[in-house]
Amino acid sequence: MDVNQKIHNSISKENLITTRRDFHQYPEPGWVEFRTASIIATKLRDLGFTIQTGKSIMEEKDRMGIPNSEELSTHWQRALLQGGNPEFMEAMKGGFTAVGASLYCGDGPIIAMRFDMDALEIEEASEDNHLPSQKKFRSKNKRFMHCCGHDGHSAIGLEIAKVISEIKEHLKGTIKLIFQPAEEGVRGAKCISTGKFLDDVDYIYACHFWSQMPLKSIVCGMNGTMATSKFDAIFHGAPAHAGIEPEKGNNALLAAATATLNLHALPSFKGNCSLNVGKLISGTGRNIVPPKAILSFETRGTNTKYDILIQERAFQILHTSATMQNCQLEVTPMGSAKSVECNPEIIQIIKKCSEEIDFFETITPSDKENRGSEDFTFMMEKVKANKGKACFIGIGANINNQGHHTRQFDFAEEVMAPTVELFVKIAVEIMK
Amino acid sequence: MDVNQKIHNSISKENLITTRRDFHQYPEPGWVEFRTASIIATKLRDLGFTIQTGKSIMEEKDRMGIPNSEELSTHWQRALLQGGNPEFMEAMKGGFTAVGASLYCGDGPIIAMRFDMDALEIEEASEDNHLPSQKKFRSKNKRFMHCCGHDGHSAIGLEIAKVISEIKEHLKGTIKLIFQPAEEGVRGAKCISTGKFLDDVDYIYACHFWSQMPLKSIVCGMNGTMATSKFDAIFHGAPAHAGIEPEKGNNALLAAATATLNLHALPSFKGNCSLNVGKLISGTGRNIVPPKAILSFETRGTNTKYDILIQERAFQILHTSATMQNCQLEVTPMGSAKSVECNPEIIQIIKKCSEEIDFFETITPSDKENRGSEDFTFMMEKVKANKGKACFIGIGANINNQGHHTRQFDFAEEVMAPTVELFVKIAVEIMK
Amino acid sequence: MDVNQKIHNSISKENLITTRRDFHQYPEPGWVEFRTASIIATKLRDLGFTIQTGKSIMEEKDRMGIPNSEELSTHWQRALLQGGNPEFMEAMKGGFTAVGASLYCGDGPIIAMRFDMDALEIEEASEDNHLPSQKKFRSKNKRFMHCCGHDGHSAIGLEIAKVISEIKEHLKGTIKLIFQPAEEGVRGAKCISTGKFLDDVDYIYACHFWSQMPLKSIVCGMNGTMATSKFDAIFHGAPAHAGIEPEKGNNALLAAATATLNLHALPSFKGNCSLNVGKLISGTGRNIVPPKAILSFETRGTNTKYDILIQERAFQILHTSATMQNCQLEVTPMGSAKSVECNPEIIQIIKKCSEEIDFFETITPSDKENRGSEDFTFMMEKVKANKGKACFIGIGANINNQGHHTRQFDFAEEVMAPTVELFVKIAVEIMK
Amino acid sequence: MDVNQKIHNSISKENLITTRRDFHQYPEPGWVEFRTASIIATKLRDLGFTIQTGKSIMEEKDRMGIPNSEELSTHWQRALLQGGNPEFMEAMKGGFTAVGASLYCGDGPIIAMRFDMDALEIEEASEDNHLPSQKKFRSKNKRFMHCCGHDGHSAIGLEIAKVISEIKEHLKGTIKLIFQPAEEGVRGAKCISTGKFLDDVDYIYACHFWSQMPLKSIVCGMNGTMATSKFDAIFHGAPAHAGIEPEKGNNALLAAATATLNLHALPSFKGNCSLNVGKLISGTGRNIVPPKAILSFETRGTNTKYDILIQERAFQILHTSATMQNCQLEVTPMGSAKSVECNPEIIQIIKKCSEEIDFFETITPSDKENRGSEDFTFMMEKVKANKGKACFIGIGANINNQGHHTRQFDFAEEVMAPTVELFVKIAVEIMK
Repeated sequence: MDVNQKIHNSISKENLITTRRDFHQYPEPGWVEFRTASIIATKLRDLGFTIQTGKSIMEEKDRMGIPNSEELSTHWQRALLQGGNPEFMEAMKGGFTAVGASLYCGDGPIIAMRFDMDALEIEEASEDNHLPSQKKFRSKNKRFMHCCGHDGHSAIGLEIAKVISEIKEHLKGTIKLIFQPAEEGVRGAKCISTGKFLDDVDYIYACHFWSQMPLKSIVCGMNGTMATSKFDAIFHGAPAHAGIEPEKGNNALLAAATATLNLHALPSFKGNCSLNVGKLISGTGRNIVPPKAILSFETRGTNTKYDILIQERAFQILHTSATMQNCQLEVTPMGSAKSVECNPEIIQIIKKCSEEIDFFETITPSDKENRGSEDFTFMMEKVKANKGKACFIGIGANINNQGHHTRQFDFAEEVMAPTVELFVKIAVEIMK
Repeated sequence: MDVNQKIHNSISKENLITTRRDFHQYPEPGWVEFRTASIIATKLRDLGFTIQTGKSIMEEKDRMGIPNSEELSTHWQRALLQGGNPEFMEAMKGGFTAVGASLYCGDGPIIAMRFDMDALEIEEASEDNHLPSQKKFRSKNKRFMHCCGHDGHSAIGLEIAKVISEIKEHLKGTIKLIFQPAEEGVRGAKCISTGKFLDDVDYIYACHFWSQMPLKSIVCGMNGTMATSKFDAIFHGAPAHAGIEPEKGNNALLAAATATLNLHALPSFKGNCSLNVGKLISGTGRNIVPPKAILSFETRGTNTKYDILIQERAFQILHTSATMQNCQLEVTPMGSAKSVECNPEIIQIIKKCSEEIDFFETITPSDKENRGSEDFTFMMEKVKANKGKACFIGIGANINNQGHHTRQFDFAEEVMAPTVELFVKIAVEIMK
Repeated sequence: MDVNQKIHNSISKENLITTRRDFHQYPEPGWVEFRTASIIATKLRDLGFTIQTGKSIMEEKDRMGIPNSEELSTHWQRALLQGGNPEFMEAMKGGFTAVGASLYCGDGPIIAMRFDMDALEIEEASEDNHLPSQKKFRSKNKRFMHCCGHDGHSAIGLEIAKVISEIKEHLKGTIKLIFQPAEEGVRGAKCISTGKFLDDVDYIYACHFWSQMPLKSIVCGMNGTMATSKFDAIFHGAPAHAGIEPEKGNNALLAAATATLNLHALPSFKGNCSLNVGKLISGTGRNIVPPKAILSFETRGTNTKYDILIQERAFQILHTSATMQNCQLEVTPMGSAKSVECNPEIIQIIKKCSEEIDFFETITPSDKENRGSEDFTFMMEKVKANKGKACFIGIGANINNQGHHTRQFDFAEEVMAPTVELFVKIAVEIMK
Repeated sequence: MDVNQKIHNSISKENLITTRRDFHQYPEPGWVEFRTASIIATKLRDLGFTIQTGKSIMEEKDRMGIPNSEELSTHWQRALLQGGNPEFMEAMKGGFTAVGASLYCGDGPIIAMRFDMDALEIEEASEDNHLPSQKKFRSKNKRFMHCCGHDGHSAIGLEIAKVISEIKEHLKGTIKLIFQPAEEGVRGAKCISTGKFLDDVDYIYACHFWSQMPLKSIVCGMNGTMATSKFDAIFHGAPAHAGIEPEKGNNALLAAATATLNLHALPSFKGNCSLNVGKLISGTGRNIVPPKAILSFETRGTNTKYDILIQERAFQILHTSATMQNCQLEVTPMGSAKSVECNPEIIQIIKKCSEEIDFFETITPSDKENRGSEDFTFMMEKVKANKGKACFIGIGANINNQGHHTRQFDFAEEVMAPTVELFVKIAVEIMK
């Protein structure tokens, strides 16, 4: 029996569904994937992988958008009650939930695959036409939901590990699996990319399911992925009684309103840049000059260069707006992702492998349509900087025409098995 | 013994202090003065007054800035536990906490006095140099504090009732006492003024303690009191994904930012008008076009005419800003007070009475310096509209140079007895 | 001798250069091309064409951005002194400078060609490295300059007329030549397109020289041409003494400043729309509330639909900004052009003809790179609405790497002859 | 005959009217009062005064808002034709039109009086109900008009000189007369105050006619006069083609629009400050990112301290707005005046003297109502800084209820004689 047949036979659709539905019931948002990550670490260790987790795999200072300590603690406690493995959870305390797993299968190239684990803060639909509700695997964690498919990503990651461990003798090289926290808000990948885990990697790839792409379609290289950056800008002014002596205050809201208008008035660089002020929270009382304003914004660029260009303009507007009202400005990065350039050589390998799988019907080598963002791009850049090759794959998974990040989001579970097959075949092909 | 001597002897300083300190320990914010009001109603009834409370004394539609039903319920439950009288509390449910008390003492003029009862949402100082803390009558209600002296106002109201009931035979006319909720934010007086309780009143007066005015000083007619109005303006827009199709959104934050700048750019009418946008809350997510913005603002005028002028300009700015971004605008009045013109005849009576009291050293007939606001002015206007006479008195009460609405606010308790004496003497003088 | 040979031999490079340099010395801006147009009309009449000019060929109400009567008169007088033909100039008074010329050459298709005549208000370079200066044909009209190549366009139009008249017997159909005023600012084409001259036209084409395109290159169908619209928005407010009673004024400048910021803050529809406020003139005196503001802006869209979308948003901002400050708004269209979709069939003919001419080396059938604007598009739409076919051609004419609308602009005169040849060959090809 | 009688008899009403009407016919705006000033210098010299003019009496660097050299030259030429004295005009070239005249009348105090000479750029009314038109002394200088009464001020200044020279023997001290240019726009006084002419002055006073004050009324000390400052702020950005690469421009108009909104949004310091952006001129072409914006504004304060406070806030807004758009900012002072505190001792003298004159019926010692501005205040401060005494007088001169700076402005000529009398009597009184 050849390796391709072995791979195909080794994949268990039941496993995939069971695992995915388990993860779906216990969604954990970014940085608090304690249950998910500790279960993954346990299973991978049991399959013979060497496990790295906690601070050993993440550069602490490069984590972005960490929840406060109360939230970290609450989620940690709940994860424990919901079956998290305390053995691994200890090292994850405080939001160190990445898991790296390595398997040496002989001398040869080092190949990394990335899977994301985090859920979102959305209340899941409870109507019967929502499959997870109908099939009884709806979220048990009030207010949180896997509505971006990361439950599926994690499940295929585990199944890939199993298949790899079973076809180990056919591989010549090292397999590294990365289970990443906090992809939502593009907060979690950077700290892994600045750590050491990827230092020796020659190839890296990852995929994302897309509910907007037709089932059975695949884009081998998602080259339209945009660079993006997320920031919170805090204006620190000074309060004053608005009726009696407003001139003694430093009006943070006026500063933020001026910034908001001018940020949106920035040029679009012919459609290559965009910016959004998504939230503004300012003021303490109706009769007080607002002493503080928190402005949450994001920038986007068709490539990283454009994203940086628009950021620079944005920072200048923020700083001058603050000074205009004698306010101090504090800008905190809350997330970041690069634009993508997939390696043409891997694109060809992916194309070939997907053509061999009896599932994919529409195979697009490279596409620039999708204007989403992904912080896996940080890992791609890291590997490319070391002369490695990187690719980001899009998997069509439409089932009910519901968008990502909506309470009715779902994906077609049948995409999981062929995706597992694809990932393993790519590795085999590279190691040939 | 003449009536003045009787009044003087009848006043109990101990009572005043005990009552004030009791109220101080159980501060209740506007519209939820369930404990305070029900205790007051009970005591007044026991003194022989006819009591009106709940909807019978308040025009429901003219109440402003009512807390939500959850808060109303929470405070009601706590009041019950803290000694509120359920007999009266039933009618007060839902925020109907005004108390009116009438005592017929023979044919003659109908004289009304107003006392306010509400506290603020401020955590009281716990340092030993803060008298309520040192003397162990600090607030027992976390987050709430009597830091404007209304505990004292309510205590003198009760003592006045007692004295009046004891010198009843010297009076020719009817005494009406009003214990008002929600003076803070100028929310509570209007609904009483549009009810029937004041319909037959010939004279009305009230006072406020001022920590900024020196002890033993009195301003008989506080004519500097400014008109003010409080509003919440809600911009209803539409969300859109900021990266993919921002043009489909209706950006409520851009509308609110434009409004904020233009509201502050309104002319000051030579210092007669002012406006403050005190709070702005907008947006749902960093990458979503903000679908909603809540802008809280207030206007002020040296008189009601100016307050209305600036409001009209403000509304125009708000409406056009909303339309500019295809947003719907909803403006809700959250409070209101008029400017004051005290009746010169009562001013003279107050001046005469305060001169006769062995306490007041600095007696100012009329003053325009204080630019605060008071919704007692609604009651004054109501009485004046019926050809009655009205006055608002300022009582110097400085003890520690701390401003109103601060966590260290306090007033000199020794002002309570002379204020009781003054209020009763004014009534006696009018009824002569 | 076949017709192609005849055409080639008939063209006089000397004529072209002489005519072009004559026009170059007497530049006339939009709507006052009295000398240019009357000389053209005279020559065309002498070649046997039937001439239409003045109101007979232009819909008066659809002219945009007409100079004031003083300017119209000044330019008319100068044109007379500089050799304009009063015979034709009379009908052109007041800015009716279009010239239409028709030549019946037998039954067959009616083919129209458009040439523009107007110059710009720019002072021409006088340095010796500027060819017109060195060769002594620099502008004699102070402040005005042919810095967009329309002098060349007009010269080739006249040469085409001559060639046509000479090969008339080879043609089966009618040739219509249009010499258009006021292409700069996209002001002049619309009024011709709404007139009757194009009612019966089956084919129409025109070209523009581009100094940014390499010499010997040609784009047969300039499909990147953007739609654009030009407007003046006047805010009519009311003055007031800024020190004494600013509140009595209606501040047109505040309205215009608010509009400016919000216009620039409009979304770019993913790069498909843009907007520029190019000028703002407001106010009368430093101490007066500005009673008036004139805001000049333009919109652009990658197609006409986008141009209209952004306009609608712009109008809403302008109207609401005006109302915000109690101003009246007056918006005047000052120019307009559509996006272009060239007819694929003519593109093929142009491609074939240009391949046959011994000059063009780089022949691009269709191109979307150039994001300029052209009001010839109005004529294209008119012809297409009548089931006719239309195309807009780009001719590479780089000589000194200077941009259009600069004082050093120039084009390579050697492009004129092959362009004449191309235009005539296209007609011959169509009439085959 | 006592001195008062002599003064009274010495005054010629005919002279006053003749001189005033002559000046009225030849109005000259600020810094180009060549005819007026040279005639005045000639007459004063002929009366025996020592004359200083040109740079000897003005600190060149402290002149503000000077016209350009073309305008300076045009006005100089016209002045020559209209009877200006070239003997004095030479030194005045370039806008040095102040005239100082001194007369030593024995040892004693040095008393200075100020008169302003400049007209405004307004076209005078030509209707018959406008007295200067009816009586044939309407402005002969198109576009310019004496519509603030400075023609009258200059006429009384000359008559005072004559009377002084006739009663010289009654005076013990030195009389200094200052004829000031460019009072309009508060541009001319500062440079005289920083020169040496006032160094030794013990007393200084001046007056202004007010068409809004009833005839026969006088305010001895105009203490309501506000401080004011005038500035031009130029934003230097960079142009760019708005359609092709707007991101390359530095948008001066966006900077100026942001500044305009934020300048108007500054607090009013309880009505003590105000600010007006009176003019904004920006942009070159509709399709060009505006490379420049000129913003003309003024600040006002109820006293100089407030004027400086609001200026500092304004500068900060201007600088940060400029930096926000990568623009350079250039702020030029265009005028300035201080607030006034008149010396109480001179007020008493003026009161006494005006009571003795058979004309003034309503005599107000000090008044704060008038909120105009005057740069004579610079001279007052100079004299006060040297322990001298200063006062600014208001003379009621209403004749037709028309405001200053309107085309129908006029003043009652009958106020001139009593004003002359007053000024001389004050000097006599001081020198007693």
